[in-house]
Parts: sequence; C-alpha cells; structure tokens
Amino acid sequence: MLLKSRQKLLFIGDSVTDCERARPVGEGLFDAIGKGYVRMVDGLLMAAHPEAQIRVVNMGCSGNTVRDLAARWDADVIAHKPDWLAVMIGINDVWRQFDLPRQGEKAVPLDEYRATLDELVGRTRTILTGLVLMTPYFIETNRDDAMRARMDEYGAAVKDVAHRHRAIFVDTQAAFDRLLAHQHSAAIAWDRIHPNHLGHMAIARAFLEGVQFAWK
Amino acid sequence: MLLKSRQKLLFIGDSVTDCERARPVGEGLFDAIGKGYVRMVDGLLMAAHPEAQIRVVNMGCSGNTVRDLAARWDADVIAHKPDWLAVMIGINDVWRQFDLPRQGEKAVPLDEYRATLDELVGRTRTILTGLVLMTPYFIETNRDDAMRARMDEYGAAVKDVAHRHRAIFVDTQAAFDRLLAHQHSAAIAWDRIHPNHLGHMAIARAFLEGVQFAWK
Amino acid sequence: MLLKSRQKLLFIGDSVTDCERARPVGEGLFDAIGKGYVRMVDGLLMAAHPEAQIRVVNMGCSGNTVRDLAARWDADVIAHKPDWLAVMIGINDVWRQFDLPRQGEKAVPLDEYRATLDELVGRTRTILTGLVLMTPYFIETNRDDAMRARMDEYGAAVKDVAHRHRAIFVDTQAAFDRLLAHQHSAAIAWDRIHPNHLGHMAIARAFLEGVQFAWK
Amino acid sequence: MLLKSRQKLLFIGDSVTDCERARPVGEGLFDAIGKGYVRMVDGLLMAAHPEAQIRVVNMGCSGNTVRDLAARWDADVIAHKPDWLAVMIGINDVWRQFDLPRQGEKAVPLDEYRATLDELVGRTRTILTGLVLMTPYFIETNRDDAMRARMDEYGAAVKDVAHRHRAIFVDTQAAFDRLLAHQHSAAIAWDRIHPNHLGHMAIARAFLEGVQFAWK
Amino acid sequence: MLLKSRQKLLFIGDSVTDCERARPVGEGLFDAIGKGYVRMVDGLLMAAHPEAQIRVVNMGCSGNTVRDLAARWDADVIAHKPDWLAVMIGINDVWRQFDLPRQGEKAVPLDEYRATLDELVGRTRTILTGLVLMTPYFIETNRDDAMRARMDEYGAAVKDVAHRHRAIFVDTQAAFDRLLAHQHSAAIAWDRIHPNHLGHMAIARAFLEGVQFAWK
Amino acid sequence: MLLKSRQKLLFIGDSVTDCERARPVGEGLFDAIGKGYVRMVDGLLMAAHPEAQIRVVNMGCSGNTVRDLAARWDADVIAHKPDWLAVMIGINDVWRQFDLPRQGEKAVPLDEYRATLDELVGRTRTILTGLVLMTPYFIETNRDDAMRARMDEYGAAVKDVAHRHRAIFVDTQAAFDRLLAHQHSAAIAWDRIHPNHLGHMAIARAFLEGVQFAWK
Amino acid sequence: MLLKSRQKLLFIGDSVTDCERARPVGEGLFDAIGKGYVRMVDGLLMAAHPEAQIRVVNMGCSGNTVRDLAARWDADVIAHKPDWLAVMIGINDVWRQFDLPRQGEKAVPLDEYRATLDELVGRTRTILTGLVLMTPYFIETNRDDAMRARMDEYGAAVKDVAHRHRAIFVDTQAAFDRLLAHQHSAAIAWDRIHPNHLGHMAIARAFLEGVQFAWK
Amino acid sequence: MLLKSRQKLLFIGDSVTDCERARPVGEGLFDAIGKGYVRMVDGLLMAAHPEAQIRVVNMGCSGNTVRDLAARWDADVIAHKPDWLAVMIGINDVWRQFDLPRQGEKAVPLDEYRATLDELVGRTRTILTGLVLMTPYFIETNRDDAMRARMDEYGAAVKDVAHRHRAIFVDTQAAFDRLLAHQHSAAIAWDRIHPNHLGHMAIARAFLEGVQFAWK
Repeated sequence: MLLKSRQKLLFIGDSVTDCERARPVGEGLFDAIGKGYVRMVDGLLMAAHPEAQIRVVNMGCSGNTVRDLAARWDADVIAHKPDWLAVMIGINDVWRQFDLPRQGEKAVPLDEYRATLDELVGRTRTILTGLVLMTPYFIETNRDDAMRARMDEYGAAVKDVAHRHRAIFVDTQAAFDRLLAHQHSAAIAWDRIHPNHLGHMAIARAFLEGVQFAWK
Repeated sequence: MLLKSRQKLLFIGDSVTDCERARPVGEGLFDAIGKGYVRMVDGLLMAAHPEAQIRVVNMGCSGNTVRDLAARWDADVIAHKPDWLAVMIGINDVWRQFDLPRQGEKAVPLDEYRATLDELVGRTRTILTGLVLMTPYFIETNRDDAMRARMDEYGAAVKDVAHRHRAIFVDTQAAFDRLLAHQHSAAIAWDRIHPNHLGHMAIARAFLEGVQFAWK
Repeated sequence: MLLKSRQKLLFIGDSVTDCERARPVGEGLFDAIGKGYVRMVDGLLMAAHPEAQIRVVNMGCSGNTVRDLAARWDADVIAHKPDWLAVMIGINDVWRQFDLPRQGEKAVPLDEYRATLDELVGRTRTILTGLVLMTPYFIETNRDDAMRARMDEYGAAVKDVAHRHRAIFVDTQAAFDRLLAHQHSAAIAWDRIHPNHLGHMAIARAFLEGVQFAWK
Repeated sequence: MLLKSRQKLLFIGDSVTDCERARPVGEGLFDAIGKGYVRMVDGLLMAAHPEAQIRVVNMGCSGNTVRDLAARWDADVIAHKPDWLAVMIGINDVWRQFDLPRQGEKAVPLDEYRATLDELVGRTRTILTGLVLMTPYFIETNRDDAMRARMDEYGAAVKDVAHRHRAIFVDTQAAFDRLLAHQHSAAIAWDRIHPNHLGHMAIARAFLEGVQFAWK
Repeated sequence: MLLKSRQKLLFIGDSVTDCERARPVGEGLFDAIGKGYVRMVDGLLMAAHPEAQIRVVNMGCSGNTVRDLAARWDADVIAHKPDWLAVMIGINDVWRQFDLPRQGEKAVPLDEYRATLDELVGRTRTILTGLVLMTPYFIETNRDDAMRARMDEYGAAVKDVAHRHRAIFVDTQAAFDRLLAHQHSAAIAWDRIHPNHLGHMAIARAFLEGVQFAWK
Repeated sequence: MLLKSRQKLLFIGDSVTDCERARPVGEGLFDAIGKGYVRMVDGLLMAAHPEAQIRVVNMGCSGNTVRDLAARWDADVIAHKPDWLAVMIGINDVWRQFDLPRQGEKAVPLDEYRATLDELVGRTRTILTGLVLMTPYFIETNRDDAMRARMDEYGAAVKDVAHRHRAIFVDTQAAFDRLLAHQHSAAIAWDRIHPNHLGHMAIARAFLEGVQFAWK
Repeated sequence: MLLKSRQKLLFIGDSVTDCERARPVGEGLFDAIGKGYVRMVDGLLMAAHPEAQIRVVNMGCSGNTVRDLAARWDADVIAHKPDWLAVMIGINDVWRQFDLPRQGEKAVPLDEYRATLDELVGRTRTILTGLVLMTPYFIETNRDDAMRARMDEYGAAVKDVAHRHRAIFVDTQAAFDRLLAHQHSAAIAWDRIHPNHLGHMAIARAFLEGVQFAWK
Repeated sequence: MLLKSRQKLLFIGDSVTDCERARPVGEGLFDAIGKGYVRMVDGLLMAAHPEAQIRVVNMGCSGNTVRDLAARWDADVIAHKPDWLAVMIGINDVWRQFDLPRQGEKAVPLDEYRATLDELVGRTRTILTGLVLMTPYFIETNRDDAMRARMDEYGAAVKDVAHRHRAIFVDTQAAFDRLLAHQHSAAIAWDRIHPNHLGHMAIARAFLEGVQFAWK
C-alpha cells in the first residue's frame, strides 16, 4: 500500500464526502469523520492495517463547488499539513446547470472548473507526499444523457489535471458504471448522486484500489 | 368542461397523489386535500369555475401499488360514491423492480398490474359518471432506460384498460416528456418520480386537459 | 404572453407573497419559491410555456407594509435586476388600523401609502421591461365594511399609481369578489386575508390574466 | 348572585369553551380548566366571592356541534351531576355551512339544531338548580352577512329553547355587538369566531351578568 | 374610573407581571400582553369600557428585582411615554434572601429597595397622569413566617413611597389575604408566589379597585 | 447496619419516591432507580458497604395516595418478594384537601388513610425481614399551618401503624424540621413538597439512620 | 466466495447487529439494514461482487440474549427462509452478570447459553445452505479480566456448537485482539462492547474472511 | 470537620465535576450545581451540618484538561474568591492518549500536566484557607492496563503537588478500587470514566473523608 505508517490523509469535497462530519474539523471521537465513504476508508485501513495508524481527516462540505474549495483551501487543506490529499469535486458544478437552469450563476463552467482545480492542485502538490484526484460522477449508464455527458467532461478534466501534477487518478464514475452493469441506478441512489451504503462502499473501494490497498 | 356542477371527483393513487392529505379522508379545511397536483386541480377548478362547486376528494396513499388499491377499494372509492374517479397508479409497481431488485416480492408484475386494474375499473365503471385513467410515469427522456421502458409498458396497459372501459385516458408521461424537451429531469425531480411544483402543475394540467377544462 | 423567454420576474409583497419562501432570496431548489400564489404562477408558466424558462423570484416578507418595502427596496428589488416586477402591498398598512386600533403607529395612512408606492415605482420603472401593480384586498363582499371600504381606497391608489407609471394593473380584489359570488368568505380564508389554495390560485390567475398568459 | 355556596357549575360547548382544557375532565390543578372564558369566570367568582367556593368544570370540545353534544351528553353532563349547567353551542353547526359548502353533511341544519338542543335540555332541566343557555355568535356587525344572519337564527332558537325550559338566556352575540360598536372585528378575532382575551372576557362578563354576579 | 379615554397604561414588574409577554414590547397581536393579571386587566377594561380604548402595555421581566428595573427604566418606562404607570416589584428582592441564603449578593436589602424605588418614582412622577404602586406579596397567612414578615416590610416601603409621591397604593398582599381566609395557599400557588388564574384575577381586581374601575 | 448482604430493599411511595424511575420496574442500568432519595440511599449503601450488594428497587408513582398503593400493592410490592420494604405515602392524601378544596373526592380522609395503610402493612409484614414506615411531611415550620397540622396527624397515624406492626419508624418531618432550623423552606422546596437535592439527601439520611447505617 | 448468486443471507444477534435496522424486517430502502457491520458486509459484497446480488437481511435486536433469540427464532429466522444464517449472540448474556450483579435473573448462565444455542442451530441447520456462528467478544486485552474470561468461555461454547453442526466459525474476539495489538480499547469502544466504525469494519472483515470473500 | 461555617467551597474539574451545571456559574436554584458528586457533597454537608451553610460552587467543564483549566483559572477560580478549592483534573489529559492515538496534539503529556498543575496551585495556595487535590482515576482493576498505569502516574503527580503545597490529598482511584473489590467496573461505569450514582457517591465520600466530614 502506498500510504505509510502515521501519515495524515485528508479528504476534501462536497456532500458525498461531508456526510455530517464534525465542524470545524472532521476528525475525532464519535461520528466526527462523517458517515460516508471516508468512514469506510478509515475502517478498512484500520481493519486490514491496524499497525499503520493512518490518520484520516474529512473536510468535505455539502453543496460545495470548486469555487467554494478555492475559498477555503488555505484554512481547510494547507493549514492541516496533510501527507496525502484526496479531492473529489465537481458534482455541484455540473448539477446546478441542470437542476437550476434558470439560475446560471449557481453553476461552474468547465473552463473555470479546470483552471481552478489546476491552480489549487498546482500550488499544493509540492507539500504533499501523495495526491489523489477523484472524478465527479453521475450514477447513470446512458452516456448520451446531457448531465452524464457533461459530468464526463468534468471527469476528463480531472484526469488531465491529475496527469499534469503526477497525481493518482481515481475514476469513481467507472466504479459506479461497474455496479450499474448489474442493477439500475435506482438501487444505488434515487437522485443518482447521493449513494446509499452500496455506492459509498464502491467509492471507498475505488479510492483504496488507487492507493494499492491490500485487503489482507 | 365535462365535470358538471356539484359533482364529486375522487382521486386515488400513490405518493404523487397523497402529498400529506388528511386521514382518513382527504377533504376539508386547511391542507386536507394534500399539497400536490390534486390541490392544484381543485384550485384551478375553483378559480375558473367558482359557480360549479366541484367537490374534490384525495384518497392517495404513499407507497401504494395496485395491490394496495385493491385492498382498500371498497372503503376508499366505492363507499364515497364519487361521480368522477381518477386513478393514477403503477409507479411503485415498477420502481420496486429497480430500487429493490433483491426483494422481488415487493414489486407487481405487469400481468398482475393490468389484471388488477382492469378488475377494479370493471366493477366500478357503471356507478360512475366519468372515469379518468392516468398513466404512471418516469421523468426520464431516454426511452431505452430499463425503468422508463418498463414504465411505458405499464402506461400502455393503462391505455388498454381505459379503452376497454370507455375511460378518459391521460398520458402524464407525455406531459412530462413535453417539459423535458426544455430542461433536464433534475429540474423537475431529483429522483425522477416525486416532482416539485413544476411537475405537479404539469400533471394537473394534463388531467384538466383530459376533462376539457376551460381556463376562462 | 407579454413575458418573454429567459426574462426574470420578481414578486415583492407581504405574507400573501412570502408563504415561507427561502431567505435571503426566494429562488432555487426545494420550496425556495414559497408555497403561495408565486409558486402557482411559476408552475403554470412552466406547464404551459416550458420553452420560455421564465425566471421567477419571490421576495415577499410577512408583515410588511409599504414602509418596510421602502427600507429594503434597493437590496431586494433593484439589486436583483429583474425584467419584470410585480408588487402587491397594502394589506398590513390597512389591517393594523383595525386589529391594533390602540397602536396607531403600526399602520400606514393612505397618503403615506400612495406617496411611498409612487416614489418606489417611479424610480424603478425605467429599468424594468414590465411592471405589474396588484391591489391589496379584503375577502369580504360587504363594501360598507369599514376595513373593506378602506382597502378599496388603497386599491384605488394602486390603480392611480399604475396609471401614472404605465404599469399593468391587476385587481385582486375583483378576483376575490368573483369567487365570493358563489360562496362565503369563510370558504376561502377564515381571517379574510390569508387564503387557502383556492384563493392563492385566484390571485395567480388574476396575475396571469394581467400578463396575457395563454393556458394552451 | 344566583350561584350559591359549594354549587357545581358545568360548562359544555365547542372550541370557544374548550381552550385546551384537561381530558377527560376539565377541572383540577394547573390549566385543567382551559384558557378561555371559563377560566375567567372561575377567576372572577373566586376574586369577588372567595367564600362561595363555586366548583367550575369545563367540558367543552373543539369542533363540536350539537350533534356531538348529544353523543356525549350522558357521560359529560349527566354523570357529573352539576347544580348549574351552561351551554354554548351552534357555531360549528353554522360555520360548516359556509366554510365547507361542498361538504353538506358536516353542518347541522336549523331544525335539527333546535330539536336536539331542546331534547337535551328537556331531559336535563329537572335535575338542575340552574340552567344557562348562551347563544352562538359571529363577531360581525353586518346583520346582512349570510353567516351572521344564519347565526342569528340559531341564536333565536336558543332563546326559544331557553324560554320553554325556564333557563337564563345569555346573548353573547349582543355582548360582542357592544364591543364592535367601538372597534372592528379584527381587533377581537381575525376569524370572527375565536376571540382573544378581550372577547373571552366579554363572554365571561355576559355569563356573569346572566347569573347576577356582583363585582364587589 | 380614573383612567380616561385613549390613555396609555404601562405595567412594569417581575415574572408575575411578565407571564410570557412579547419582546421587546409587551403589546400587540396574539399573546403579546402576556398571560397573567395584565391580560385580565386589559380584558376587563375592554369588556366594561369598550369606548375608552385604554392602551395597555406589559413590560414585566421574569426574575427582576428593583435593581434590574433601575437598569432598564429609561428604555422600558420613560421612552414609552405612558400616561399611567403601574409598578409591582420586590418579590425577588426578598425571595433570594430565603431561597438562596448562601448567595447574599443575589437579594436586595430593604434600604436599597426603598431608596431605588423612591428614586425611580421620583424622577418619573411629573411626566405621569397617574401612578399606581402595588406591593409585593407572599401568599401565606402566617405573618410570623420570616419571608412573609420581610415581604410586609417591603410592602410598607411601597406604601411610604406611594404616599410621598401621591401615587395610588394597591395592597396586593391584602387581596391575597382575603382569598386565603377561605382556602389554603396551596389552592392559589404551590410556591406561594406564582399564582394560578384565581390569584392573577385577584391582583387584577385589586388594581382595578385602585383606579376606581366600574364593572358596569 | 440492619440490612444484610444480598437482601432486596423495595421503596414504594409517591412522586418524592418516583423521581422519573424506570417503568415497569425501577431497577437496572442508567437512571432506572430514579433521581431522588432512593438513588442517594443506593449510592450511600454501595459507597460505605460495597461488599453487601444490597439490591434496591424503586416502585414510587407520582401523584399516588394510599388508595393508589392499595390498587397496585400485589403487583408492585408482593410480586417482587422484597426482604425489606420502605413505605412513604400520604402527601397527596393531604395536599388535595388544600390545593383542590372544591374537589373533595380527590383527597383521602385520615380514617381511610390509616385503615388502608394498616391493612396493607398487616398482610405484608410476615413475608418481610424488615419494614420501614416513613411519615409524609410538609416543609413548613409553622405547626399551626392547616396543612402542616393535618400532615402531622397523618404522620401520627404512620407512627401508630408502625408501632402495631413492629416496623421501623422514620420521621421525615423531623428531618426537615432540623433543616428548617437553619433556613427557610424556600431554600429546600418552593412548593414545600418536592425537595431539591438538599431535601432528598435529608430523607435518605433519615432512612439510613432508621436502619442503623454506618458511614464508615 | 462461498456465497452464491441470489442467495439470501440473514444476520441475527443483539445491538451490535441491530444498529437501528428497520422494523419488523431489516431490509429495504434507506437505512433499513442498520448502520453497523451488516451494512458494511452488504456494501463490500456489492462493491466486489455486484453480479451476485446477495440478499442481506438484518434481524438483530438490541439487548437480546440467546433467550430472546429462542423466543423469536421461528418468526425472525425460520419464516424468512434464508440460504445462509449468521448468528452473533452472547454479549448481553455475559454483560448482565457484570453490570447488573444484583439482578441475577437478567443474565444467561453458560450452560443455558450453550444448550439454547445448540438447540436453535440444531433444528435449523438442515434448511440452510450455509451457517456462520460468530463469537461474542469483549474489547479488552487482559484475558484475566473477569468479564473477558467469561466471554471467552461463551466464545468457546460457540466454537463447540459450530463444530457439532458443521458451521463456519468466526472468531470476532480474535479480530478485535488483532486491532488491540496496536491501540487501546478506548480507541475502538469506550464501553468495550459497542464499537465505532473501526470495530464494525473489523467484524465485517472477520465475517467475510469466514465466507472466503474475495476483495477483487 | 475542617470546613467552617459560611465558607465558600469551589470545585473545578472536567465532565465528572461538570454534570450539566449551570453557566456561567454552577451555583443557585434548581440544578445549577450539576448532577454529580458535587451535588452529593452539597447534600451531605447540608443534611449533616445544616447550621454551617457551607457555600458550594461547581466550575467543572466537560472535556477539560489541565491546559483548559489554566486558560480559565483567573476567571473561574481566582475571581470567585473561594475559601476552599477542590481540583480534580487529568482524566482527559490521559484518555486522549488512548482513544485518539492518531491525534497526539489532543492529549497532555505528564510533564506538562505536572508543571501546569503545580503552577496553578502554587499561585493560588496563599489566598485559600484549604486546598483539596483529587486524583484522576480509571475504573479498572488491572494495574497493567496501559491507561490505568498511565493514570496512576498522573495520580502520583497529583500526590507530589499536594505534598509540595500542603494540600489535602484525596485518592479517588483508591476509592474506586475499593468498590471494584466487590464488583466489575461494568457495574459502575461502562466506559470506566463517567460513573453512575454509585461511583459519584464514592467520589463524594472520598472527598468528605478528606475534609474530615462527620456523618452525625
């Protein structure tokens, strides 16, 4: 596994990451780490590698776009001095284009998304041991669906940024597509965004594959 | 308009009809009629035809399939002696096939759906002045989507039953398709089933078109 | 219809407009637009004209008089740069004269009402494509009732101001009078001010008539 | 004062009497007696005549018509063996004719109202020391208002029944009319039925005048 | 009655006056005036003298001593420009001496109480048409009880201050003693301070006697 | 100490005993034993005599009189097979005579009280190792107070019954009188019945003195 | 993996299994499956083997001992016709011996525990494809701790029963011991019984190892 | 007893002291003093020595370490001018080392603990009549348990500091060990830190022994 003993791993993202994590910092007793895939990652790291004592911190915020990440990047990423950083952002950047079409100012266009993510990652990369960039996703198999198609463009942007900055690229969309080969999206998430435990575990597993986690 | 002065119009269906209507009967002061399309139908009938004083009753129940309708038909339809009856059922019959694929007993297969609806309508038609059968729907444009395709089969069954029993046929799926020509499903319903006010008004309008409502 | 594609339509008013709209801005996901006539207008615009994508914003505030509108006009009207503006104010200006007769300072006299409304409308008219002025109302048929008579004076002031500023005049009082020809006020609003869905739909319909809305 | 030391005085009626009284019996510690005119009567009897220790019981039930009183008369009146009985009923019998015009079965017609009240009073009169019949009311000065006119007919029926059974007749409508000579109904009750403390005190005072209460 | 038409009557005091009145000002719609004796005074003034339209304001605050009154006197009395002022304070000044004997700083000694009350009244008297000073009380018949004896001293101080400033003196303790001649304190207030409706009406009546209120 | 290792000690009584104990049986994890003197007794027994493992059960019920105890004696005392039984009852039997003087049926007269207690104790004594009878009390020093005087009569009845059945007699009234020598009743209980922790500890201590508890 | 496509896997146990699962059956939409290790098992099965569509049902009940399982075995196990059954019981059987030492009847002795479990398993084994017996555990490294030592005896009984009935034996105690080699029990569960997500994942992993789950 | 009449005794510490005490100061009516051992100390001092009227103040704060005490020492200890001060701190200083091993910054190392406590006590001792230092504790009999062993080191530091500053030393760990000789820790506190009433009374008794309290 790429993660080494006593390293600090910080996740930042939107509601899929957040999942009711503690404020101001998603780390500590009780449910501080939230109830989503971050918790599952933390559990699997401990169950399989208890000796490593990887420190996991959840800094997701519901509703965030990459614009919101930029505004809180220094306080919520840099100041925590993580060894590893995992970023999953973009769902709201796209979703607002489709669920609030009349309020254009709420969404983030692709160019701004790519540039902002690139800037954030660029000025952070050197202080990190490892960086993981995860795609946003839409739990929908039809690649011609307008929102899926758009989300794929944002995912491609993540892949580009990951390539430019030597980051590990995690394709969460592919992870969901694998689940969807065997069941309809309705079995994972009625809104195709906020997954139940089946979907959260799929994200956790995709992340762990990315960092070469060993189950045994 | 086909509805005549002082007639009683009863709606029966699932959560899309229910919308927090009063128990045991969805009629009366305050929000007894629920907060969905039935309320909008009632409001439009009154605003445009206050002299008619059409009596509107909401007997929807969240989560219902046609099996549940059969179990409460005598108490919730026959006993109320409506002049007009509107039925919209089938969403849960289909949805459970896709969101609970491992619990096959929760869904209602097409044959059972068609037969049950036909039986219920058949033994009620003669006591009614008018009957409106509304299709179930899935707020999704991709007709190859497995759930949309299945829902269309159930909608076709409604059309058959309507034809056999001289009922007015209301194609709510077509009404949603019309909205979807101009925006993504996410703008109407994140889960593609429970619409916001835009979708409820589209259902109300489709129903009113069916009964030849005049806006002025 | 007078409203054109992609235009922004902003409603401002009191509790009849507000109806639990979101703060600070009554626009967006879920019930942000409130639960009253504004929601119904939004629904009917979309159901009949989905291609137009009219943007509707609700800036009503419960309890407001025209004095309160003046205090928040820049922030809640001007700053939003609406194409169309609809104003319905005056109910509380009058009501406080009758339900709090011992607290004279709570109500707004007719002269102040007319002058304030005129001033607000006057300095806003030129930046608008369209302006709709709606009368306050009292759901009471007896024109000799002191409060109805007073409300009619305020309604007449609205008509004057509308005339002076080339605004569309919507007579909500007349819309209610039409309903009251067929039933007692108790069937619309126990307090003769806050209507149930029947009354809200009557307001919505009166507004839409004013902007030459086409049902089909 | 007609009420004598240690007598039990029972009030029965609708929501105006009820006012959150305790169940099953509106008598005892804390707010058992409710928060309306019955509480004020109890307070005034004690403040002016503490030596009398009149026992006051509140058996009002929100929403009741005279039909509902008949159904619970034995349990809620007879079984308590009051010395004095005060009845104020009829508001809902009339109101439902106007606020639910489409649900005719909810209201009680005048003939049924008069006959039921007469029957109840008739079979109870002999076991009572004193009987007080209070009119229903509508807090509206316009006697041509359809609901006020109807309420006056029910009030006249109360007067007839009082006369036939040697009961003290209390004209609560007249008490409200006296208040309305100096202010609009909106200052007493927005819905013209459920009064604020000003209206409840007016009812209490009317009742006490009826039983020849002495303030000092 | 000494109170004249359209005069403003302001009550200030502690929890017995407060009774959940509205903030910042205890006047207006719904229960703004609180649920205690002030409400009853307001109701009786209206029921007997509706033509007078006396304006009643409740500025009581739970837990207050005369020290607290001094701190808010300008804002809560002077700024309201009352015609009549009624003050009932002192219960907490005394009670804290007995229920928190170990926390001497919480109570107000007699000298400070008298001096503060005198100062407040002295600088306010001239701007008032009428002034009513009401004693604090302890609902206990045993004058040798330490707290009753102390409360009587504070009551005597009120009498002195009233005499010095030509104020109407209302002896609420005497009013309670009159009730207690016929029943134990437990029937009025378990804690001998916060009365039920029987005790609040006794205070209201004592106040009204003081201003020569006429019941008819 | 009279209590021996592994014995079961059951308390029965009213709200002073109850203090939110668990239902149906006041014994077990968390706050099952309630929050009053029974909990303190349990704590002191364990702190000083951990080896004894005395089993303590709380069967108090708020509002109970001796009449209520009789109705549940078999289920709530006999069926639990206690070794020791402690009874404290009578407060409500007396209090209702004073706080609800108009509802005579709510209180229990002295003769009935004495006879019922005697009967209950009589048929239970032989199955018990030890029996403790505790007086009811009124936290009031004035023995001429009507309620204190009456309570003393009930306490004397307890003493008689204790003597007749060789029970340990615990004078809780004397325990409170000892506290009251140094402070007013207001410092122990505003209502003179439900004590704060100071009063509950005084009851616990009186009980423990009765069973010859050793602090060290 | 031993679990085959479309098989039904039912878990039964106590609060560690329950974790707020739905009633009456822990299967379905939303959080029906509970929030503990069963949810994690379900998620991992789906993430790694989506084609298998294993059906997972949670029938845990907080506070249960093996006595409680016996009482509901027919309804909660047999009636569901599972292919695979997993049982984890015994924690409360032991815990009550230590946290309620004075209430001996609340715990289940070892002999009764072993016999009951053996009987339940014995009469169910033949209708099952697979059976998994999981030990109870105490998250404590000190094997001389009285409760750990006792729990180990119950765990040994589970091993015996598993051996007698050809069941897969899962040693959850060993799984926790592995975690405890790297951190104190306080990092897993303050009460050493109800684990946080780290502990639940350890249980899930132990179970999955037992059924030869493949991570990839 | 060492505590003398009218002296003020202030307790400071963590959640074991706090127990929901009032803010900002844990002294006064109702449950201001909290629900733990401080309340029991207050009750026992009053029950046995009502003439002394010792003033007890609770300034505990949940979650505090000695670092937190230092930050609020002036405001929460010095400013209150206590005659006696009792300090029990250290549990969280140690616990965080074990329940949050990955967040090293949350715990307080032994050297810092000892130095901080010494500094606080040193600059306060001269203004106090009496000082009581109580050890932190872990309700666990196994002295080889890592957390118990560490806690014992912190307890030894308390003993040192007490010796250096002529403070009364109270060994709460010894008090718990005495309880644990007769039952498992599970009967006192599931988490071995927050005791039930049995444990709180043991702390209260240990403190009172320290100040030579006399039960009679």
